[in-house]
Amino acid sequence: MTPTITAFASSPDRGQGLARDMRVRWALEEVGQPCKVRLLSFHAMKQPPHRALQPFGQIPTYEEGDLTLFESGAIVLHIAQHHAGLLPDDDHARARAIMWMFAALNTVEPPILDLQTAKFAESDKPWTAERLPLIKDRIRARLDDLALRLGDADWLDGAFSAGDLMMVQTLQRLKPSGLLHEYPNLAAYVARGEARPAFKRAFAAQLAVFTGSLAPD
Amino acid sequence: MTPTITAFASSPDRGQGLARDMRVRWALEEVGQPCKVRLLSFHAMKQPPHRALQPFGQIPTYEEGDLTLFESGAIVLHIAQHHAGLLPDDDHARARAIMWMFAALNTVEPPILDLQTAKFAESDKPWTAERLPLIKDRIRARLDDLALRLGDADWLDGAFSAGDLMMVQTLQRLKPSGLLHEYPNLAAYVARGEARPAFKRAFAAQLAVFTGSLAPD
Repeated sequence: MTPTITAFASSPDRGQGLARDMRVRWALEEVGQPCKVRLLSFHAMKQPPHRALQPFGQIPTYEEGDLTLFESGAIVLHIAQHHAGLLPDDDHARARAIMWMFAALNTVEPPILDLQTAKFAESDKPWTAERLPLIKDRIRARLDDLALRLGDADWLDGAFSAGDLMMVQTLQRLKPSGLLHEYPNLAAYVARGEARPAFKRAFAAQLAVFTGSLAPD
Repeated sequence: MTPTITAFASSPDRGQGLARDMRVRWALEEVGQPCKVRLLSFHAMKQPPHRALQPFGQIPTYEEGDLTLFESGAIVLHIAQHHAGLLPDDDHARARAIMWMFAALNTVEPPILDLQTAKFAESDKPWTAERLPLIKDRIRARLDDLALRLGDADWLDGAFSAGDLMMVQTLQRLKPSGLLHEYPNLAAYVARGEARPAFKRAFAAQLAVFTGSLAPD
């Protein structure tokens, strides 16, 4: 059964691939699973029909028969558990790959989201210029540790996994800040993720929604 | 095999149960699994031996034979997947319970952590008093949605699950702010979690480390 996901009809990042449907699209491409995409306006996202699927009024959702999921982390994990290609077979290695998904979402992403909040939700506040260096230092504290752990390995723990997918997507959000390029091995890690054919297909599909060059079915 | 977890030798919350070992202790109590606890000083947490287990220099870790995990979300999920009691048997209900774990950690917790950052890391800054109402409104936006979805149900999706465990722990962090009590059904939900015998045993065990009334073995 082909799952249906939701995405922004007009992505706030203008197709840079930072909206959270990208993670799900990428995961589906990695495992060779097609999907249908239902596009939602900002207005529609906040209305009762969508909130019945996603209580926080966000994208993406994932519908597959009578299963409906939200939270990109949960959706990617569900895909990874039901199709080969995103989690190792070995039970311990599998637990560690899932651990890296949580590390991306709960340890690395929160300070990065602070930077976004400062730049967008608090861009007009008098304190923001002075707060930015504090926020950036909190991000650097995470990146220092992550860069040390990654070292010169290609991926965080053996072969590419759903943990790398989530971490690469989390780090991509740092590109406009210049912070990522203070860490050459992390920048190369993100570039390796972006070079994967599945990433490129998913990126093109979400960009096509923005440019209008391809209507999702 | 009895797993070993790590926890603060001297918890910054003085035994209020907000350190992230509490989530793991609670999960282990729910499934009836004993554990050993290794206590770490703030200094030891940042040294190479612990960073080899936890690259970000945090607690908890989880060691079971040759498996080492970090990230409380990943550890709780691992426990829930290997013991009965924290995830439904039905495949769809299981996916939804895991979804609520991610919702707790990646949608509800980040704005709550912003409040903690403001109160602790930026308590001496001139802007903090003016920023607090903005942060609180961002938290309320999440709580509004969560309260609406929970309604008058006991738990988020059927029986108590690892999703509720993570959400209750996330919401507990709001108690000092008074925000939780703006939402009577969420306050009652947290109270239901805290009334569970497994929660009480886990809470007592982490408090005993702080008060020195019980040496963990």
